[in-house]
Amino acid sequence: MYKEFKIKSTKQVEFINITSEVNKHLKEGGIREGVLVIYIPHTTAAVTINENSDPNVSQDIIKEVNNIIPFSDNYKHFEGNSAAHIKSSLLGCSETVIVKNSRLNLGRWQGIFFCEFDGPRTRSVRLRLMSV
Amino acid sequence: MYKEFKIKSTKQVEFINITSEVNKHLKEGGIREGVLVIYIPHTTAAVTINENSDPNVSQDIIKEVNNIIPFSDNYKHFEGNSAAHIKSSLLGCSETVIVKNSRLNLGRWQGIFFCEFDGPRTRSVRLRLMSV
Amino acid sequence: MYKEFKIKSTKQVEFINITSEVNKHLKEGGIREGVLVIYIPHTTAAVTINENSDPNVSQDIIKEVNNIIPFSDNYKHFEGNSAAHIKSSLLGCSETVIVKNSRLNLGRWQGIFFCEFDGPRTRSVRLRLMSV
Repeated sequence: MYKEFKIKSTKQVEFINITSEVNKHLKEGGIREGVLVIYIPHTTAAVTINENSDPNVSQDIIKEVNNIIPFSDNYKHFEGNSAAHIKSSLLGCSETVIVKNSRLNLGRWQGIFFCEFDGPRTRSVRLRLMSV
Repeated sequence: MYKEFKIKSTKQVEFINITSEVNKHLKEGGIREGVLVIYIPHTTAAVTINENSDPNVSQDIIKEVNNIIPFSDNYKHFEGNSAAHIKSSLLGCSETVIVKNSRLNLGRWQGIFFCEFDGPRTRSVRLRLMSV
Repeated sequence: MYKEFKIKSTKQVEFINITSEVNKHLKEGGIREGVLVIYIPHTTAAVTINENSDPNVSQDIIKEVNNIIPFSDNYKHFEGNSAAHIKSSLLGCSETVIVKNSRLNLGRWQGIFFCEFDGPRTRSVRLRLMSV
């Protein structure tokens, strides 16, 4: 199974919980045991797995990542969004999750987040399901 | 093959070399060529691959990661462990390693480390073996 | 399919675009749908996916990563290259890319970069192709 779906970010930097959307596509895949690769085809966005319960966790990650990689720092890239490119490489554009008993084998508190670093924009998320 | 095993961390921040434990489970999997996905189902821990020889390498990584992401920085998350969540997203909760000739195809100096960022705790490591 | 190829870095810190070399080996693999795992068997190097168009993006990432992780910071590792080990864990030694219609399913602006953090050296890149 291969799927692509769209999401819309509404801020410059924003984490969007895509767990239920990913789950929906996983069910259509009809695979019992394997792995799911979540892939972001952008260079100023990323995907991460972190706490799905208290939304302040995402807010704290965003605040600290913005501190570590300043928006302006004499970057040379002409588009002026180098901070977003750097954050994309640090967080990473793919995650591989285990599929077990036809379900995402996430931990109790884990959710999958699309990380927007240069929004607002319409973005894509791609999924590849691999069976054992 | 799917496996879960437990480890116990003994410090707040600690890297634990899990290479031999991973290897033991890989042998039971009986697969010759493929990949092994190592997955951490926690939001305040991670997995990384780095030098397995001089233990000062892990110590230096821990010290610098603690410098980059301060334990206190006016975080909003009520549990007070936001630094651990941020480190988890930066290091990442999964690694995919090549399996070749029934063995982990690691580099000469590489070992697999469980990264505890909010211990001490009992933790889980999950493994999914995929054959070509 | 499993492949290993060599590259030579010419600087201490350098990003080398390996997209076309990876593509060449992918074509030899003859697989239509699946994933490709790109694995770096070194502890002072990494792999990342980022913009392949303006080379200033790589330069900005390198400059900022060098800022975040200083070359000297009272590290204990006797070889003196702890900064390179830390960068390797932050960027990560593997990437999993979707293969679709026999091609790398990269985004429009994405390229695959070998990240040298302790060069110049001769380095290896390993590839494992998995079919659905």
